[in-house]
Amino acid sequence: MPESNQNLDNEFVEYIQKAIENEDMQSFREEFLDAHPYDRAKFFIKQRRKIRFQLYAYLSPEEMAEMFENLDIEDQEKLLEEMDPAYAADMLSKMYADDAVDVLNELDKSQVVSYLTIMDDEAAQEIKELLHYEEKTAGSIMTTEFVNIPANLSIREAMNHLKHEAPEAETIYYIFVTDEDLRLAGVISLRDLIIADDDLKIHEVMNDRVVSVSVSEDQEEVAKMMKDYDFLALPVVDFQKHLLGIITVDDIMDVMDEEASDDYSKLAAVSDMVTVDRNPFSAARKRLPWLIILLFLGMLTASLIGRFEDTLDKVAILAVFIPLIAGMAGNTGTQALAVAVRNIATGDTEHESKMKLIAREAGTGIITGAICGLLVVLVVYLWHHDVYLGLLVGISIFATLIVATLAGALVPLVMHKFNIDPAVASGPFITTINDLISILIYFGMATVFMQYLTR
Amino acid sequence: MPESNQNLDNEFVEYIQKAIENEDMQSFREEFLDAHPYDRAKFFIKQRRKIRFQLYAYLSPEEMAEMFENLDIEDQEKLLEEMDPAYAADMLSKMYADDAVDVLNELDKSQVVSYLTIMDDEAAQEIKELLHYEEKTAGSIMTTEFVNIPANLSIREAMNHLKHEAPEAETIYYIFVTDEDLRLAGVISLRDLIIADDDLKIHEVMNDRVVSVSVSEDQEEVAKMMKDYDFLALPVVDFQKHLLGIITVDDIMDVMDEEASDDYSKLAAVSDMVTVDRNPFSAARKRLPWLIILLFLGMLTASLIGRFEDTLDKVAILAVFIPLIAGMAGNTGTQALAVAVRNIATGDTEHESKMKLIAREAGTGIITGAICGLLVVLVVYLWHHDVYLGLLVGISIFATLIVATLAGALVPLVMHKFNIDPAVASGPFITTINDLISILIYFGMATVFMQYLTR
Repeated sequence: MPESNQNLDNEFVEYIQKAIENEDMQSFREEFLDAHPYDRAKFFIKQRRKIRFQLYAYLSPEEMAEMFENLDIEDQEKLLEEMDPAYAADMLSKMYADDAVDVLNELDKSQVVSYLTIMDDEAAQEIKELLHYEEKTAGSIMTTEFVNIPANLSIREAMNHLKHEAPEAETIYYIFVTDEDLRLAGVISLRDLIIADDDLKIHEVMNDRVVSVSVSEDQEEVAKMMKDYDFLALPVVDFQKHLLGIITVDDIMDVMDEEASDDYSKLAAVSDMVTVDRNPFSAARKRLPWLIILLFLGMLTASLIGRFEDTLDKVAILAVFIPLIAGMAGNTGTQALAVAVRNIATGDTEHESKMKLIAREAGTGIITGAICGLLVVLVVYLWHHDVYLGLLVGISIFATLIVATLAGALVPLVMHKFNIDPAVASGPFITTINDLISILIYFGMATVFMQYLTR
Repeated sequence: MPESNQNLDNEFVEYIQKAIENEDMQSFREEFLDAHPYDRAKFFIKQRRKIRFQLYAYLSPEEMAEMFENLDIEDQEKLLEEMDPAYAADMLSKMYADDAVDVLNELDKSQVVSYLTIMDDEAAQEIKELLHYEEKTAGSIMTTEFVNIPANLSIREAMNHLKHEAPEAETIYYIFVTDEDLRLAGVISLRDLIIADDDLKIHEVMNDRVVSVSVSEDQEEVAKMMKDYDFLALPVVDFQKHLLGIITVDDIMDVMDEEASDDYSKLAAVSDMVTVDRNPFSAARKRLPWLIILLFLGMLTASLIGRFEDTLDKVAILAVFIPLIAGMAGNTGTQALAVAVRNIATGDTEHESKMKLIAREAGTGIITGAICGLLVVLVVYLWHHDVYLGLLVGISIFATLIVATLAGALVPLVMHKFNIDPAVASGPFITTINDLISILIYFGMATVFMQYLTR
């Protein structure tokens, strides 16, 4: 993706690098602060430690905050460690509170406390409040820097209020209207504010049917609402509808990315793929727990086949088709699993009953099983010229695909029922379960066909 | 996710339904048009055909357009078919052009032409232009309804211009500044416009370092930029920097959702999971192509094992561990694959060389292989009291995990190199490939250990 770097053009980088070399703080600041904070962050994180320290001296904590928000969480941690604590605390207080909370959540309790102690009281208070909320809830991603106004202001007064609040607030494109108890009463977009007659009162133009989320709502659900309703910000309320904060669309894009990455890594049985592995040890640490569980499940499969050792001793050819049958069970199971997990995640299972989903998966299993089964009968017959062997493998594939497809769909549904995130049922997990099922079916069938197979 | 329906409360639904029953158009319109368009869409799509026809009469094409944009693409298609063509064409012309194009892209050419013929000329022209762009590019998701102003206006003039344009434009929160040739010269956010002194000129306050995307840019890349830079809208330009349109954040959220779903379904070897399957036939149609390919790959594995039939005849116990070894190869391969695909998608591979990624995966394979291998030696020895069998299976697992991990990482990298979307290398695909590799390793080892195994 080379084009995304177009903005961080060489000219810019060279100019800045030269200014740093010459210790020309003014030229550096002029050019650097003109760039988008994301581009500043990209430049900064590539610098050596010595240069970073030079730049801490060149940039105010406030300027650093603006850039800092655009860094990965791991890089943020690294930089915080090397910064002067007073500078760091000052910078944290200048960040949007929700972004500051995101980093602080990664640090030790004692370190957080020490930052909060040196920080100015107002910012510390704001951050403390947000730190209470559980991770991945609306509360944990909301910001308290929003614009709210009373309903009895005129449009003109509201606009003046807004001009005053604009530099501080995280977004000014939705203005939330509250009653005297600070309960959420309505919302008005800046667009409507601009179009409306200056002398009207806010309550005459505001929308009093406000969509809001509860502070304990899951962030994935918040993302879904934001996407469905095309909002740029959503108000967060407590159970008495007091306005606590807002969630802005830019934070929701990060949530969507995180959740997508999460589901994806779970399907592949890797824990936490969001943070990048810098060495094989951290990569192995994330994958080994799964591999070891799967290894023992695989041992179960092995011991199951062990029970049929006599059968295998008599008809060695049976072993040839074990991976084929187990593999097909795994493949169809993974497909059914992914579809079910996705249906649950997007809420599509609400529209139709679970029974209907199961019936459809059973139907899908029968169709795919019949077609693959017939193909296998044909291929095995052409290859081994043994109609019974063909029938055995074909019927096994048929039965296996039906059961494995159903298993792939049922496992996440059952997990969802018991409030376990269905996405933890990974592809490799369902594959290994289906290995077991398929081998049971295959050797069960083989016992039936035994008399026709021994030569 | 029941909470997301909280806004479509029962009271609202009952009231509306009653109004419809009583054929009380006015009460219906009052309440219905007060709801968020997304809630209207949710209500509408649940109605029977007869009621839908009643509502086409109650709602103007413009009102229908606002609601229609919030429906799934399949539902949109269904409704277009049943609508009066003149009403449909009128509605399409009232939709945001990018949304209209999304539906039209799903229809037959002849049908599109017939709509465009009855539509008013200006809208038809706009839509025709957008229809040119290739799917999944910036051009295909951009809208031409944006606000642009010349650089020499004063802030006050710009605000007046904005008030006039606001009802039509898809967003007014970024105003794009163009030169006399309509080339993109700068951008100013509505926030900055509001804060700025009324008498200043636009070119004095605008940001002339505008981040823009090329009209042929991939939509996934656009989404990444929007997310990184926290924009609410991105300008789309041709190669001469002429401003062609803008992409708004709400459309990008849909893109992110679509792309995540896409990557996810590819990992699970299901084509196109975005559209919901209504019956087992459509589900089977999406999964069968993959299953059949995998079936033939599985046959390859089977024929490979067939070559070792003599070995199996002598040592039947060997068959017991085939699924374990093949399974572990599949599991580790899927993990490595997912990590590599994700790294490529997020552009993390830019930061480090491919060699480094491969070296890290090799290291990961050695670590996980060594640990799992040792475990296996132990377990197999305790179970079968046969140290040679334990060593055979353990060493095979060790070697297999290294090779399979590398294969999982290499396949997507090679595909990326040849400009094939690495996400098409699905979990089941890599699993089946790794089955082959692992069996080769296992029986290769078995040949070495043969003399110690025959009892």
